[in-house]
Amino acid sequence: MRELNEKGKLAKAAARKLAVLSTSVKDKALLSMADALENSAEYIIGENKKDIEAGRESGLREGLIDRLMLNADRISGIAEGLRQIAALPDPIGEAVSRVKRPNGLKITKVRVPLGVIGIIYEARPNVTADAAGLCVKSGNAVILRGGKEAFSSNMAIVKVMQEAGYAAGLPEGSINLVENTTRESSTALMRLNEYLDVIIPRGGAGLIKAVVENATVPAIETGTGNCHVYVDESADLDMAKNIVINAKTQRPSVCNAEEKLLVHEKIAAEFLPSMLKELSERGVEIVGDERCRALWSEAEAATEDDWYTEYLELKIGVKVVGSVDEAIAHINKYNSGHSEAIVTSSYQNAQKFLDEVDAAAVYVNASTRFTDGFEFGFGAEIGISTQKTHARGPMGLRELTSTKYIIEGSGQIR
Amino acid sequence: MRELNEKGKLAKAAARKLAVLSTSVKDKALLSMADALENSAEYIIGENKKDIEAGRESGLREGLIDRLMLNADRISGIAEGLRQIAALPDPIGEAVSRVKRPNGLKITKVRVPLGVIGIIYEARPNVTADAAGLCVKSGNAVILRGGKEAFSSNMAIVKVMQEAGYAAGLPEGSINLVENTTRESSTALMRLNEYLDVIIPRGGAGLIKAVVENATVPAIETGTGNCHVYVDESADLDMAKNIVINAKTQRPSVCNAEEKLLVHEKIAAEFLPSMLKELSERGVEIVGDERCRALWSEAEAATEDDWYTEYLELKIGVKVVGSVDEAIAHINKYNSGHSEAIVTSSYQNAQKFLDEVDAAAVYVNASTRFTDGFEFGFGAEIGISTQKTHARGPMGLRELTSTKYIIEGSGQIR
Repeated sequence: MRELNEKGKLAKAAARKLAVLSTSVKDKALLSMADALENSAEYIIGENKKDIEAGRESGLREGLIDRLMLNADRISGIAEGLRQIAALPDPIGEAVSRVKRPNGLKITKVRVPLGVIGIIYEARPNVTADAAGLCVKSGNAVILRGGKEAFSSNMAIVKVMQEAGYAAGLPEGSINLVENTTRESSTALMRLNEYLDVIIPRGGAGLIKAVVENATVPAIETGTGNCHVYVDESADLDMAKNIVINAKTQRPSVCNAEEKLLVHEKIAAEFLPSMLKELSERGVEIVGDERCRALWSEAEAATEDDWYTEYLELKIGVKVVGSVDEAIAHINKYNSGHSEAIVTSSYQNAQKFLDEVDAAAVYVNASTRFTDGFEFGFGAEIGISTQKTHARGPMGLRELTSTKYIIEGSGQIR
Repeated sequence: MRELNEKGKLAKAAARKLAVLSTSVKDKALLSMADALENSAEYIIGENKKDIEAGRESGLREGLIDRLMLNADRISGIAEGLRQIAALPDPIGEAVSRVKRPNGLKITKVRVPLGVIGIIYEARPNVTADAAGLCVKSGNAVILRGGKEAFSSNMAIVKVMQEAGYAAGLPEGSINLVENTTRESSTALMRLNEYLDVIIPRGGAGLIKAVVENATVPAIETGTGNCHVYVDESADLDMAKNIVINAKTQRPSVCNAEEKLLVHEKIAAEFLPSMLKELSERGVEIVGDERCRALWSEAEAATEDDWYTEYLELKIGVKVVGSVDEAIAHINKYNSGHSEAIVTSSYQNAQKFLDEVDAAAVYVNASTRFTDGFEFGFGAEIGISTQKTHARGPMGLRELTSTKYIIEGSGQIR
C-alpha cells in the first residue's frame, strides 16, 4: 500500500533523528503542541462536528457518539495530558545496568527508543494526541491508524500537532496518520515489517484478534479484561462488598472493571444475598451458577460462554467455590490475564493467590480498578498489556523503549 | 495437529506447577539430568549414530555431520552446561521494583516465568539439552522442535532428561519434544496460541523468515548477524588489525563474526593493503567497493547484495568511507541489528557511533565476537535477539521471564 510505504519511510528516517534528540527539544515540542491544540480548539471542534454528524447518520449509538465528541473542555484535557507527558522524566539514555568484565570491557545496557511504533485504535480521538505525545517523549516515530468514525477529528489533531511540533524542532515524519481507514490499511500496517518495530492495537477483542492473526510486526496485545474478585471465607465482608461495588460499578466499560465474582461456600449464604441485592439496586444484571441461584433466585443461569466473557457493562457472573484452590483454578482457566483480586484475612491464602494466579496484576484486598498507568505512578499510559513478552500490565514511557548494549574496550579480542 | 495439542496441554499444565516450584527442586533436577546424560552416554551415542548414518546417506555436508556428532566428551560438555545452569541464581521471584503509593497500595513488580516456550532449531542436538535446561531453571515448560537430521539423538536426550528430571521432582510435561519433524509441525507450533506464550527460533535466515511470516505466537527473532567493523581515521591501526582478524577469522560461522569492514579514506592507503594481505593469507575471500579495489586489485567487486549478506564463512566485504557519518549511515542501512564496532581514538566519534548506530550491541575498540551470554556474564545463553521488543542482544535466564504486578492493599477502592 503506497501510503503506508511512504509514511513508513518518512517515519523511519525521523526515528533515527528522534532517537538522539535532546529531552529539552522533545519537551518544548510537547508543550508547543499542547498550546496549539488549545489555540486551534475552534478548528478541531468544527472538524469533529463532521464526524459526529456522519456518526449520527450511520446510526452510531449514543455511547460511541459521546466518546467521539470533542468540546473546549475535552481539548484542554488533551492538551493537559501532553503537558503532563512533558513533565515526566525522559526514559531514553537511562542505564539499566553496567558491569565491568574481568577482561576490562565495560558493558552498559542503555534504554533506547523502539524506533517506529504503529498504533491501531478505534473511535476516541483523544488517543491520537495521547499516543503521539507518548511516542515523541520516548523518542519514537509513530504511525497512527485511527477508526474511520473519527477521521476528520484525527486529521485535524494531527495537522495541528505536526505544525506545532515540527516548528518546535521535532523531525518531520515523527507523527503520521494513515488516511486510508479501510480494513486493508489496518492489515497492511500490521505487516509493514520494513518500517515498523512494533504494533500496538488499542481496542476491542475483534481488533486484538485480527492483530494476533495477521501481524508479522511484533505486536503487544492490550486491554481485554475478564477480571475476577474472589471473596475468601476469611474476608472482611464489608471490605469485600465495597471492593465488589467499586470494581463492578464505578466504571463498568473499562478493562480493569470486575466481570466475575467468586465466593467461598462457607460465607456464601451470609454474603451473597445482601451483596447481590446491592448490585441489583445499582442496575447490575446477575448470572450465576446453581449455588448462587439457590441463594439469589433472580439470577439467570450462567453459561460456559459467560465465564469467558468480558461484558464491559453492568452485568456480572457469580460462582460459589469450595476453596481458594478452586477459585485459582477457575481464574487461571477463564481469565484474560488482566487483573484478579482476592479479599481475605488469611496470610496463607493471600500468598497462595499472589503466587499462583497468572495475570498481569494480582491484588489482595483492593479493587481491580487500580490497574492503570496513572494509579501505578507511571504518569502516563499507552495501554495495558495482557501478554507476557516485552511488557505486562500498564505500559508507561519505559514500556515504549528497547535497550542496547554499549561496550567500551581498549582493544579486547577473543 | 493432534501431537502438538496434546503436548501443548501437558506443557501448560506443567507450567503452572513449574512456576511455583522451589529453586532447590529445579537445581536438583538439573544436576540429576546432567548425571543421567553422562551415565547414558553409550545409549545416546548409539542413537546419534543413526542420525550420522542417515545424514551421510542423504549427502549432508561434513560441517553439518560434525555439528550433529556426539561423543563422550561432547555429552560431558552438555552435562557440564546443565550443572552450570543449576549453579546460576534463580531469576524467578526477584523483585524488579516496589513502590508504596500515596493511597497505601504496595505495588511490587516480580519476575515470573513466561509459561510455555516453543523452540524451533536445526541440526545441533546439544541445543536440546541446553534449551531444556534454561527453560527448567527459569520455571518454564518447553516444547522443543528440533531438525529431522538430529531426530534420534534428540529423542534419546529428551528421554533421558525426562526420566531423570521427573524422578527428581519436575512436573511431568515440563520437557516435550515434537516427534513430527515435517515443515507442517514447525508452522503449527508457531501458531499454537492456546498453549504457547512465546516461540524462539534458533537457526538460519530461512527459519527466522518463516517464523516472522507465519507465527501468531509472540516470537523472538534471534541470530542474524551482518556485523561491521569501522576503522576510523584516528584508529590505532595495530589494534584495528587485531580486532578485524579476530572478529573475522576466529570463528567465522557464528552470528557475531565480522562480515564487513569499513575504513576511513584518510587511512585507507596506509591500512588496507597490509590488512587485506593478512586476511588473504588467512584464507579470507575479499570483495570491495571501487576505492578498496584500487588499493587491493585482487578483490572482486562487491554487489548491492553483498552489503546485505551474512556470509558466515571466510569472506568479507570492504568499503572505503569519507566520514564516521557515512560509516554510520551505511551500517544503519545494511546491518541486521546485531553487533557493530568502531576502532577509534576520537572521543567524539566514539560517542557518535555509540549514540547513532542502531544495533543490539555497539562496540568501541573491541571485537564484535564478545556479543554472547557467557562473555556478557549471564552464565548462559538461549540465543541473541536482534529485535527490539522483549529482549535485545544476548538472552540469558532473565530474558526467559515475564513479570507480574502484585498489589497488597487494605481495602482500597477508587
